[in-house]
Amino acid sequence: MTSTRYQIIETTCDLLEAQGYHATGLNQIVKESGAPRGSLYYYFPDGKEGLTAEAIERTGKIFAERIRTGLAASDTADEAVRAFVQHIAHLVEASGFRAGGPLTTVAMETATSSERLNLACREAYQRLQSAFENKLVESSFPQERAAQLATFITAALEGGIILSRTNHSGDPLRQVAEELGRVLAASGE
Amino acid sequence: MTSTRYQIIETTCDLLEAQGYHATGLNQIVKESGAPRGSLYYYFPDGKEGLTAEAIERTGKIFAERIRTGLAASDTADEAVRAFVQHIAHLVEASGFRAGGPLTTVAMETATSSERLNLACREAYQRLQSAFENKLVESSFPQERAAQLATFITAALEGGIILSRTNHSGDPLRQVAEELGRVLAASGE
Repeated sequence: MTSTRYQIIETTCDLLEAQGYHATGLNQIVKESGAPRGSLYYYFPDGKEGLTAEAIERTGKIFAERIRTGLAASDTADEAVRAFVQHIAHLVEASGFRAGGPLTTVAMETATSSERLNLACREAYQRLQSAFENKLVESSFPQERAAQLATFITAALEGGIILSRTNHSGDPLRQVAEELGRVLAASGE
Repeated sequence: MTSTRYQIIETTCDLLEAQGYHATGLNQIVKESGAPRGSLYYYFPDGKEGLTAEAIERTGKIFAERIRTGLAASDTADEAVRAFVQHIAHLVEASGFRAGGPLTTVAMETATSSERLNLACREAYQRLQSAFENKLVESSFPQERAAQLATFITAALEGGIILSRTNHSGDPLRQVAEELGRVLAASGE
């Protein structure tokens, strides 16, 4: 990827995470990325929707990789998930509550208004769930139970991020970390 | 409340739920509410931010009341929460995935950009959490544990709504219902 193209997508990811799809305009992306306006139209001929679809895909891949790396640091699933969610609490705090949940706002804004972006968000969430599911399977959870718990973990993490950003406090996420750790420890391995 | 004022707030609540804060303009509110433009400026001299703050307050009260009523239908907390979250899955499906999580998008969009709307969202989420917490206390959970679990329930419910709207399926919420029911049953009463 050229560095200009990369910079445009990076800037778009950050803006979508902080303020959502509707608030993010091409003018702001041009301004904050420092890319020439012509490059934006050259690399993203479909305009804002196409650029956002690519940004969402990239965000899903990065977040899934972050989950895989984070979970790999602990042997047991309960400890891995607890530590990962605590780490997200820290990141949300460190961002001044601007970041965390990079898919949420766009997913909700476009769930029924853009087929293309809805599909991109679905695929991105599926990547996150698979990352959790794989760790659970590695930790000896049966496949079906691992898939169910991965959905639950993703939901609780997403909701915890919303509550932490809204309350300007990492505490809701730390509570989610604690509860998910208990659930997984009790679900046996 | 006069019926015009009421109608403006109702319309605003619906639009915020379906598409968020930034996508919702005063023109659309005027058009869809059928209220004269002058009434909107008369009743809401602060414009869109003030109107949204009132809509969020109203949404929080209505959602909290819906939780209280829903939970009252079952004696035990685990059964009450399971049935309530299943009910939300049904509502999200029935709306064609346009509705559910009436606070989420606005909360994320405004977490660090509007102090007034952030405060309104915090108070609204607090109402939801209190509604769950009170049911748990009634069901003999100790106060502190009830508060912790209420945060977890609210997070998982919020995240489940996002996944259900994004996937155009009530299944993620039904999975959340099942898991929360297990957690509460195992947490003893």
